[in-house]
Amino acid sequence: MAQSKCTDDALEMDLTVQQGVVTNFKNSLSDSHIGSASSSVKSRGDVRKQTKLGIEVSKEDNYCEWYVQVITKAEMVEYYDISGCYVLRPWSYAIWEFIQEWFDEEIKKLGVKNCYFPLFVSQSALEREKTHIGDFAPEVAWVTRSGQSDLSEPIAIRPTSETVMYPSYAKWVQSHRDLPIKLNQWCNVVRWEFKHPTPFLRTREFLWQEGHTAFQTKTEAEDEVFKILDLYSQVYTDLLAIPVIKGRKTEKEKFAGGDFTTTVEAYVPINGRGIQGATSHHLGQNFSKMFNISFEDPNGGGRVHAWQNSWGLSTRTIGALVMIHGDNSGLVLPPRVAAIQVIVIPVGITAQTKDEQKTLLIEKAKEISDVLVDVGVRAELDVRDNISPGWKFNHWELKGVPVRIEIGPKDLARGEVICVIRYSGEKRSIAISSIATKCGEMLEEIHCSMYNRILEARESHMKTVLEWDDFRSLLDQKFILLSPFCGRIECEDEIKKKSMREEEDDPRAPAMGAKALCIPFEQPDMLLPSNCINKNCSEKPQFFALFGRSY
Amino acid sequence: MAQSKCTDDALEMDLTVQQGVVTNFKNSLSDSHIGSASSSVKSRGDVRKQTKLGIEVSKEDNYCEWYVQVITKAEMVEYYDISGCYVLRPWSYAIWEFIQEWFDEEIKKLGVKNCYFPLFVSQSALEREKTHIGDFAPEVAWVTRSGQSDLSEPIAIRPTSETVMYPSYAKWVQSHRDLPIKLNQWCNVVRWEFKHPTPFLRTREFLWQEGHTAFQTKTEAEDEVFKILDLYSQVYTDLLAIPVIKGRKTEKEKFAGGDFTTTVEAYVPINGRGIQGATSHHLGQNFSKMFNISFEDPNGGGRVHAWQNSWGLSTRTIGALVMIHGDNSGLVLPPRVAAIQVIVIPVGITAQTKDEQKTLLIEKAKEISDVLVDVGVRAELDVRDNISPGWKFNHWELKGVPVRIEIGPKDLARGEVICVIRYSGEKRSIAISSIATKCGEMLEEIHCSMYNRILEARESHMKTVLEWDDFRSLLDQKFILLSPFCGRIECEDEIKKKSMREEEDDPRAPAMGAKALCIPFEQPDMLLPSNCINKNCSEKPQFFALFGRSY
Repeated sequence: MAQSKCTDDALEMDLTVQQGVVTNFKNSLSDSHIGSASSSVKSRGDVRKQTKLGIEVSKEDNYCEWYVQVITKAEMVEYYDISGCYVLRPWSYAIWEFIQEWFDEEIKKLGVKNCYFPLFVSQSALEREKTHIGDFAPEVAWVTRSGQSDLSEPIAIRPTSETVMYPSYAKWVQSHRDLPIKLNQWCNVVRWEFKHPTPFLRTREFLWQEGHTAFQTKTEAEDEVFKILDLYSQVYTDLLAIPVIKGRKTEKEKFAGGDFTTTVEAYVPINGRGIQGATSHHLGQNFSKMFNISFEDPNGGGRVHAWQNSWGLSTRTIGALVMIHGDNSGLVLPPRVAAIQVIVIPVGITAQTKDEQKTLLIEKAKEISDVLVDVGVRAELDVRDNISPGWKFNHWELKGVPVRIEIGPKDLARGEVICVIRYSGEKRSIAISSIATKCGEMLEEIHCSMYNRILEARESHMKTVLEWDDFRSLLDQKFILLSPFCGRIECEDEIKKKSMREEEDDPRAPAMGAKALCIPFEQPDMLLPSNCINKNCSEKPQFFALFGRSY
Repeated sequence: MAQSKCTDDALEMDLTVQQGVVTNFKNSLSDSHIGSASSSVKSRGDVRKQTKLGIEVSKEDNYCEWYVQVITKAEMVEYYDISGCYVLRPWSYAIWEFIQEWFDEEIKKLGVKNCYFPLFVSQSALEREKTHIGDFAPEVAWVTRSGQSDLSEPIAIRPTSETVMYPSYAKWVQSHRDLPIKLNQWCNVVRWEFKHPTPFLRTREFLWQEGHTAFQTKTEAEDEVFKILDLYSQVYTDLLAIPVIKGRKTEKEKFAGGDFTTTVEAYVPINGRGIQGATSHHLGQNFSKMFNISFEDPNGGGRVHAWQNSWGLSTRTIGALVMIHGDNSGLVLPPRVAAIQVIVIPVGITAQTKDEQKTLLIEKAKEISDVLVDVGVRAELDVRDNISPGWKFNHWELKGVPVRIEIGPKDLARGEVICVIRYSGEKRSIAISSIATKCGEMLEEIHCSMYNRILEARESHMKTVLEWDDFRSLLDQKFILLSPFCGRIECEDEIKKKSMREEEDDPRAPAMGAKALCIPFEQPDMLLPSNCINKNCSEKPQFFALFGRSY
C-alpha cells in the first residue's frame, strides 16, 4: 500500500503526494493528475491544513501517538477542555449509528423495548448492592450544587444503571405474569477514572446501550445472556470485521454484584493486547434480593425473586476498530460501518483539458456515483475543484473510505474506472457497465478479507502454554495465551504481578501484567494438566483461561 | 365513548368493566364476554393492579391529577426518587423513537450530520456569552466531587450545548470552505428548575435533539431557521396530529444570546394554555464573536464571523400529546406515533364455547393481526386467557391504542370484525376480506380527524382582540388572543402582571398572567390599530402578538 510521509513543509508534502499518485498510476497505467496541490492553496489556513493531512508517525514506531493522529486527522474526535471527555465528530459517530441500527433491530426481535431512566441516582439507591457499589464508588461523579445553592444531599451520576432501574422493577413485578421485563436504553454514563484517558477506549463519559432484563426462571435468564453475547459477537465479526473469542470472565474480572459475566474479547495485533469487546452479565438473584424484585411463586412456593441480566456495548467499539484495522495511511473502515463506502474522484484534468471534456468527465463521475447510490452503496462524489486529486486521495485514505474510484478521460474512453481498495492498496480496472454489481461484491469481499487478515494475525499469536517460562516469554512477543488456571482471585493477582515486564527494552509493548481475558467457551482440545500456570499455585486447574496484556 | 369509573374496590371495578363491555356490545350487536374479571384474580397484587386500572378523575374536574393518572396508568412514566426526574417507560419512549426516526431522516436530507459532544462543560466556556449564561446560570447543575475527592474546579452539566460546541467550531473554521457546519445531537440536558416539575412538560433532565449550524452568510442561516421550523411544525401536524401556530418570539421570550427565535405554539383546549412546541433560533454573530468562529472573507474583506443557528425539539412533545388528545378513558395516541396501532382481541368465548371453536377464533384473530403487520400496520394480538375481554378493552383504551378490533364467533360466521376507534368511540363492522386496506385507511382518517378536532377547538378559542377588557375576560374563558403590541419587554411584563387572575373561582384555569406566545407569521387581515393592547402603553403597536396563559 502506498504510504505517504508528510512533513511540516507544504511543498514537500505536495511532492510526496504527487509521487504517490505517479507511482499509483505507473502501476495501473491509468490517467494521472500532475497538477500541483500547492497551486490551489489560497490562504495560510489552507496550507496548514494540507501540511498536517498525513499521519506523521508509524503505527509500529509509536502506536499511541499514531492513534491520536488517526482519530484527530481522520476527523473522528476533537479534544476537549475537560480531561477524559472528547467530542465524537460525525465521522466516528456514524460508526456508532450503524452499530445502533443493527443491534437495536436485533434486540427488538428478542422482545426487548427501549426506554429511558434518569441520569441521576440517589445515594441510597446507588449503595444498595454492596459488592456492586464497592467497585464503582471511587469513580462516581457527584452533583452537589445547582446555580449558587447547595443541594440538600449529593446526587450521583449513573456509572451504570442497575441501581437506577431496579427500584422501578420492584414496583412493576407483582405476579409472575409481569415477567419477563426486557428493557434497554441508549445513553451516556460517567465513570470518573483517574487512569490515563484515551478517546473511545477509556473515557470519563461514554455512550453505550445497557440492557436490563428480569425473568421468572434462571434458565430463561441464562439463555438470554448467551443470545445477547452472540449478538455482541456479530457486531464485531459482521459489522466491524473483527474476530472475537467468546468466554466467561474469571472471578476477579466479573461484573461486581453479578453471578457470572460473559464477554467477547478481541486481539490487537500492534501491541498484542486483548480488548474486552462487550459483556453480558447474569446477575442471578443478587440485585433482585437487594431491591426486592419478587413475585408469588405460581406453583405455591411463596415469594420468589426474579433472575436478572444486564448487558452493555459501548463506543469503545470504535476505538477497537481504529486500533485493529488502522494503518500508516490512517483509518481503515470496514465497509458495513463506513459512512462513505465509495468515493468517486475525477482525475486527469489539466490546464490543457477542454471544458467540454471536463464537463463530460464530471457528469460521468456523477452518473457512477448515482448508480451506486441507487443500488444501496453509500457512494459520494468529490468534485471540489480547489484541491488536487492527490490531496483527495490522501484525504479519503486517511479517513479510511473502503474503495476509491478514479475516473479520468482515458478511463472514460475505455469505458472503465480504477477501483483502489483502501485496506490492501490493490487496484482493479472495472467496466463502467458492471460497476453496480462489482462494487457491491467488492465491498463484501473487503469485509471478509479484513476479517481474515485480523483472524490470521490473532491465530499466529495465540498459543496454548503450560509452562510459566514460555508464558512470560511469549507474552513479551505479543501473544495471548491459553493456560491452565485454578480460577482463584489471589492466583490471578499473582500471575498479573509476576508477568509485569521489568526491562523497558521494547517501548511498543506494554509493561503491564497479564490479565485473564476470559475462560473461552471453546477450550483447547487436550486434557487439563495437573498444575496451574502459576508455578507457586498448588491448586488444581479448573479450565484453560485466556491470558494477555489488556486494555 | 364508554367511560368507566374505578374505585378502590375490586368488585365494583369489575362490575364497571363489565358494564362498559355490555354497553359496547349492546350498541354493536356483537359477541360479548360476560365472564367476570375477578374470576381470574389470583393474588392481592393482581387485585390492586386491576382496581387501579381506570382513570379516577375527569380531565374537566382536575386536569392535573388526570394527567398524572394517565401517564402512570398508561405505563408511560414511573415516578423516581429524585424530584424532577422521571422514568420514560417503553410506551412513551416509543413515541420519542417515532419522532426521532422521522426528524432524523429529514435533517439528514438537509445535510445535517449527527455527532456527540460531552455532557460536561467547563465554567469558563459556559460563561463566555454573558446574556446566554445570565439566563441559564440559576439552573445549572454542578459536579464538584468524584468518589471521595473534590474536583480541582467545579464542572457544569450542559443545560444546552452552545458553549460546549462552539469552541470546537472555532477550531474547525479557518476558511469559508469549512462552512457550513451542520451538526445535530440527540442527548440529555439538565436544567435544575425549582418551579413545580411535571413529567415531560417541566423536568430537570430531559431528552432532546439540538442542532447547531454555522454559515458563511446571514441569508443561508436565516433560510435554515425557517426550514427547521417547518420540520418542527410537521412533527406536530403530521405525526402528533396537533395544529401549531408558527411565529417569532418577542424580545422578552427569545433565546438568551440569540438574534431572534422562531417557534411553533400549540393550544391546549382543557385549560386554554399555549404550549411552546419547539424553537429554532438565529444566533446571528453573537456566539461566533464570543467564541471567535471566523474566516477570511473570500471577497477580501478581512476576518469575518460565521452566522449561526441552534434549534431544539424535546420530549415535551409527549406531554403536549397527552394533554391535548387524552380523554377521560386515558391516553389517546395519534396513529403515526402509536407503538401499537391496532389491538386485536378475540371475544365471546364462554364456558360453553367448544375447544375447536375457540382455537378457530384465536387462529383467525392471529391471521388478521398477521395480515395487518404484513401491510405495515403495527398490529398486536391480545390472547391472554387469564383476563377478560372487558379488562383488555379498558387496558388498551387507557393506553390509547387508536383502533381495537374485536372478533367473536358470530362475527367470524359473518366474515366480519368490529373496529372500535379510540378517539371517537365509534364502532364499524368491517369485512375480514378487506381488513388490510380498510385498516390502513382508517388510521389515516383517524389522524386527520384528531387533528381537525383540535384545530376546531383552537379556532373557537382564538380571537383578535383590541380592547384590554375583552382581553382579560376572554383569557379567563380559555382563549388565546391576537392583540396589537409594541413589543417592549417592560410592556410585556406589565401585561403579564395585569392579566393575573385574582379570584380563584375556577380552579381548572390557571391564574398566571398572559405571555406573548409568539408574533405569528400570519398576521390578522386588518390594519394595526394605533394603540397597544396595554392601556397604559403609549408606544405604537408593531404587530399583532399572540397572547395566552402558557406552559
